[in-house]
Amino acid sequence: MPRLDAQRWVALKEQWPALSPPQRVRAFRELAHLDAEDLFQQLSAEQQRDLLLTMPVGERRFWIRTLAPDDAADYIQAAPEDSRGEWLALLDETTRPEVVALLAYKEDEAGGLMNPRCARLRPDMRVDEAISYLRRQALGQEGTFYYAYVLDSQQRLLGVISVRELFAAPAERIVADVMRTNIVTLTAHTDQEDVSRIFAEHGLLALPVVDADGRLAGVVAADDVMDVMWEEATEDIQRLGGTRPLGEAYLEMPLRRMIAHRGGWLAALLFGEMLTASAMARFQDDIARSVALALFVPLIISSGGNSGSQATTLVIRAMALGEVRLRHWWMVLSREMLSGLALGFLLGAIGLARILAWQGMFGSYGEHGMQLAAIVGLSLIGIVLWGSVSGAMLPFLLRSVGMDPATASAPLVATVVDVTGIIIYFTVARAIL
Amino acid sequence: MPRLDAQRWVALKEQWPALSPPQRVRAFRELAHLDAEDLFQQLSAEQQRDLLLTMPVGERRFWIRTLAPDDAADYIQAAPEDSRGEWLALLDETTRPEVVALLAYKEDEAGGLMNPRCARLRPDMRVDEAISYLRRQALGQEGTFYYAYVLDSQQRLLGVISVRELFAAPAERIVADVMRTNIVTLTAHTDQEDVSRIFAEHGLLALPVVDADGRLAGVVAADDVMDVMWEEATEDIQRLGGTRPLGEAYLEMPLRRMIAHRGGWLAALLFGEMLTASAMARFQDDIARSVALALFVPLIISSGGNSGSQATTLVIRAMALGEVRLRHWWMVLSREMLSGLALGFLLGAIGLARILAWQGMFGSYGEHGMQLAAIVGLSLIGIVLWGSVSGAMLPFLLRSVGMDPATASAPLVATVVDVTGIIIYFTVARAIL
Repeated sequence: MPRLDAQRWVALKEQWPALSPPQRVRAFRELAHLDAEDLFQQLSAEQQRDLLLTMPVGERRFWIRTLAPDDAADYIQAAPEDSRGEWLALLDETTRPEVVALLAYKEDEAGGLMNPRCARLRPDMRVDEAISYLRRQALGQEGTFYYAYVLDSQQRLLGVISVRELFAAPAERIVADVMRTNIVTLTAHTDQEDVSRIFAEHGLLALPVVDADGRLAGVVAADDVMDVMWEEATEDIQRLGGTRPLGEAYLEMPLRRMIAHRGGWLAALLFGEMLTASAMARFQDDIARSVALALFVPLIISSGGNSGSQATTLVIRAMALGEVRLRHWWMVLSREMLSGLALGFLLGAIGLARILAWQGMFGSYGEHGMQLAAIVGLSLIGIVLWGSVSGAMLPFLLRSVGMDPATASAPLVATVVDVTGIIIYFTVARAIL
Repeated sequence: MPRLDAQRWVALKEQWPALSPPQRVRAFRELAHLDAEDLFQQLSAEQQRDLLLTMPVGERRFWIRTLAPDDAADYIQAAPEDSRGEWLALLDETTRPEVVALLAYKEDEAGGLMNPRCARLRPDMRVDEAISYLRRQALGQEGTFYYAYVLDSQQRLLGVISVRELFAAPAERIVADVMRTNIVTLTAHTDQEDVSRIFAEHGLLALPVVDADGRLAGVVAADDVMDVMWEEATEDIQRLGGTRPLGEAYLEMPLRRMIAHRGGWLAALLFGEMLTASAMARFQDDIARSVALALFVPLIISSGGNSGSQATTLVIRAMALGEVRLRHWWMVLSREMLSGLALGFLLGAIGLARILAWQGMFGSYGEHGMQLAAIVGLSLIGIVLWGSVSGAMLPFLLRSVGMDPATASAPLVATVVDVTGIIIYFTVARAIL
């Protein structure tokens, strides 16, 4: 069968989503072997599974064996519990125990991302021996091949060398003299968020996973980590927006499930907001005496909510980036006190000017106009300060009790600040009127 | 000089930040050559620059020449405009024109991320010839070496093969028969956000950049894309939280600049919120007649803001992931109308129950208790529906006028919904009372 050229690839990939499962299997069989392998590797795990399920068992066995052990493991993890045995039975004798070992790790730690297969060298090999040795290892290796890992006889990791560096090294030098010994390593239980941070910091294409004795267990490659980065950023963003992370595509998620993911937090926040009604009830008489006071409640509380949302977002992201750690709470607090105060003065001045202007032009707020201006101005200072400080401290509070700091969504902070904002505002009002 | 072992690396890396620039240069000189190179590669661009600036010119020339052209370009881009010539003069004759060409691309497109150097092969080479050819290319190549790109005599990209696949292929086959022809390519002007999405979708370690005639211009590697992913996610998250993206580390940013980055949006939102005072002023008499009405304003508007924040966050993220495009606006609108209505009924029912319960237990809201319950319940339905719909549509509106949809921050949506929420609430109240 002839190989596909670029144009026919584009055409095939455009058609693909519209084909029925049996049509896909047929189109797949019509490809040259190398093209079929290429296409299969690029399908998502679900697409691969659908394709495999439509094939007869013999073909299914063939294709699942082309997967790297970590991809096969991801894939079997996604299958229903009771069919896992059947899928495992399709693997060859070498891969099956590797996949079973990988299934024991959690999906969100380095062990669940690593590929146990990778290029391995001995430190006392000569460079040209190492290159021929790698050529023998390449056969049937669906492993990371960008770096070769140098191991002693106990499989302990001594060094690393990229294939390019090995190619460039003089043929008669020994590997130990040309390898790098400055190795960043992961353990099988390193959390996937830390894994992606370490990758981004060091700019590497693969990182080795070692056990407690320094023995090489596998390699995590950058392509698998990029998926994780998108996924983690999506979860953080959705949490910040006040939704339980959807875990699937917005347009494809069944409405019922989407409503459940959003309704929980919305209802919880509503219960929180009920405290605002109770707080305002305590100042009912003040409102009855001066209705103009009520007009500025939304402006006051939303300014608190906005400054809180800014502070909490900045702190949560800085924590995810590893820039801010628990021990920095005091530095963050002092920064937020200073910037909250500065921002409060800015907003207070604007609020004051607005009321004085309306009072001057239209006499909008009756005899108490000047006092009202002072109340709004002073409250804004207090509320923006309080919003910044509590928004910044909430992620620390959550992390220190072992929760994900990203739970401190913008809406949650706004709710906390709303209630206290009302109390600040009316307390200032009582003091002045 | 002896090579460092793992323990001494850890010690050195811990000390490093505390050393003064001259101490760093001294520590650097004491390293074995390979270790020094290794350390230098792992420093951040700023750390590299500080180190280079402290060195005499001869050493500086040596070290800048160890950088890949794309890294050298990033680094010269960060230097002050008037010193760029001096830096360029330090490069060798081959690298200088490559770096000058890269400086012409914007930092946030594929051209600004790519490395012009990579492993190249001809389609009619035999596999064993190709391997020896790669060994010759590896010398002095600070390029991507995971994939080798197969080019015709006009440098047009015909196929790609990973080094592992080349190693595994029979020595006497020709490259054209074993290469992959299903190639995902970028152009020099592909936006970096699209670049990172394409990487995450396809799970590859490097992608080729081609010009309009299909000629290979360079290669973007996954490690450079990972930095971009972190950076883009950080910007999106900070925008969503209602801050102009900081562009530097939270704890290191001068306070004055941080306040400027936050104050702009806070002040703009305050101006928006002033409309709430004007909106409420129109209903001043209603409040004077029934003060209890004012008590529920915060609860009502924050529920609208929260549902808007959820919807806008979900839509913005789905757009960034490429799941939702402009043409999907109608699907999104209908989904949000349905889920907004469902969520509205949920919150309305809770609100109604709360007021009836307080009225039953404490008679909190006087003679109009039942009507108040109906007003709050009905308004919540309307406001949650309106919040969801307008929160979801705002990113479409922004994108259709060419703005970044992530500008639709949670606080911006909340402000928009607050004003309309007040009007909905008091209009319902007038109709019922």
